[in-house]
Amino acid sequence: MNEKKEVGEKAVEYVKDGMVVGLGTGSTVFYTITKLGQLVQQGLTIKGVPTSEQTKQLAIELGIPLVAFDEIEQIDVAIDGADEVGPELNLIKGGGGALLREKIIAAAAKTFIVVADSQKNVDTLGTFPLPIEVVPFGYEMTVKHIRKLGGSPKLRQKDGIPYLTDNGNYIIDSSFQEITHPRELEKNLNLIPGVVDNGLFVGMADIVITMKDKKLATIVRR
Amino acid sequence: MNEKKEVGEKAVEYVKDGMVVGLGTGSTVFYTITKLGQLVQQGLTIKGVPTSEQTKQLAIELGIPLVAFDEIEQIDVAIDGADEVGPELNLIKGGGGALLREKIIAAAAKTFIVVADSQKNVDTLGTFPLPIEVVPFGYEMTVKHIRKLGGSPKLRQKDGIPYLTDNGNYIIDSSFQEITHPRELEKNLNLIPGVVDNGLFVGMADIVITMKDKKLATIVRR
Repeated sequence: MNEKKEVGEKAVEYVKDGMVVGLGTGSTVFYTITKLGQLVQQGLTIKGVPTSEQTKQLAIELGIPLVAFDEIEQIDVAIDGADEVGPELNLIKGGGGALLREKIIAAAAKTFIVVADSQKNVDTLGTFPLPIEVVPFGYEMTVKHIRKLGGSPKLRQKDGIPYLTDNGNYIIDSSFQEITHPRELEKNLNLIPGVVDNGLFVGMADIVITMKDKKLATIVRR
Repeated sequence: MNEKKEVGEKAVEYVKDGMVVGLGTGSTVFYTITKLGQLVQQGLTIKGVPTSEQTKQLAIELGIPLVAFDEIEQIDVAIDGADEVGPELNLIKGGGGALLREKIIAAAAKTFIVVADSQKNVDTLGTFPLPIEVVPFGYEMTVKHIRKLGGSPKLRQKDGIPYLTDNGNYIIDSSFQEITHPRELEKNLNLIPGVVDNGLFVGMADIVITMKDKKLATIVRR
């Protein structure tokens, strides 16, 4: 059984004719996008807003019409994966490095749907190191501020040099052990000068589609 | 009487031999830096950390030795101007567009000193439009979020195109009329995905040097 495929494909049920759809990035939402491509071939008319260059290419290959973010008023539904799904559907995202665009698009969506295999579900957020996007200027000082909040920050590297986001920033991956107050940590991180945003998505997910006891489960945030 | 010169030059009294000094940007701190240049010629040994390209050039011309931000552990004292100085020494900064670097450097300083002529003093912050640094991607949506917080946001333009910060971002200038709860507004703005930082400096200034009744006044934050 391919859990990612099951939950990813399930999400297309929320996509209706005429909708503007935020398209996430990653190995689970890949199946959502692939399925949407099939439906478009069969006559579904949607406009996609990709969260990354990678997803943009995939959508183009599949024939999903795209629209620039600055040409739309709002997004009807955004669908994306997550690195961790915790209590109250709060998330850690950003393992793939696209957290800021994903967050901008999720915040612009009327309904934000998360697709996540069973391994992503956790009782407490924080085992997955939290990705934090920071401006390159003075990032060493920013790292010190993150450490003061209890994190163990590490600069993300790629091929021996700092990884750069689509926005030209660095990513700091920081374990916090157990994140029991995600809203507070999200706020305190964003108040550090030099922090652009972080991978905590608090109160944003409306619906999580996952697997429980090997069955599809749809969880709606109260 | 040149108020900017008086308050600007007064600030050098806080600079001692051997210090690492954050050098702000603007027409008032210009006099601080010029005075520091004279003192360096007379034997004062300091290292400057500039907040902008403009200040960097000025310091070089004046013979003030500079040090890269990534080579230091901390800043002993940072001196900068402000667009508004309100109750509890909370500030609006960023009229010059360098708010993020100024905030990073102020946050790294053991003592942060503000030099401000009497016209900068206000009973309530908010008459000066608050500068907000935002990533270009999806900035139209970010503007909508700012409006929801009660602002009247306008994209800063220069020569008919969007003004770009040293970090490659846009500046949104947003009047909020009266900012009675600056800490809350600072936090809520920074929680908007797409907002990098904003010009509210809350609880950061340790000392403000200004003019009251045409006399120099030094105000220390309690």
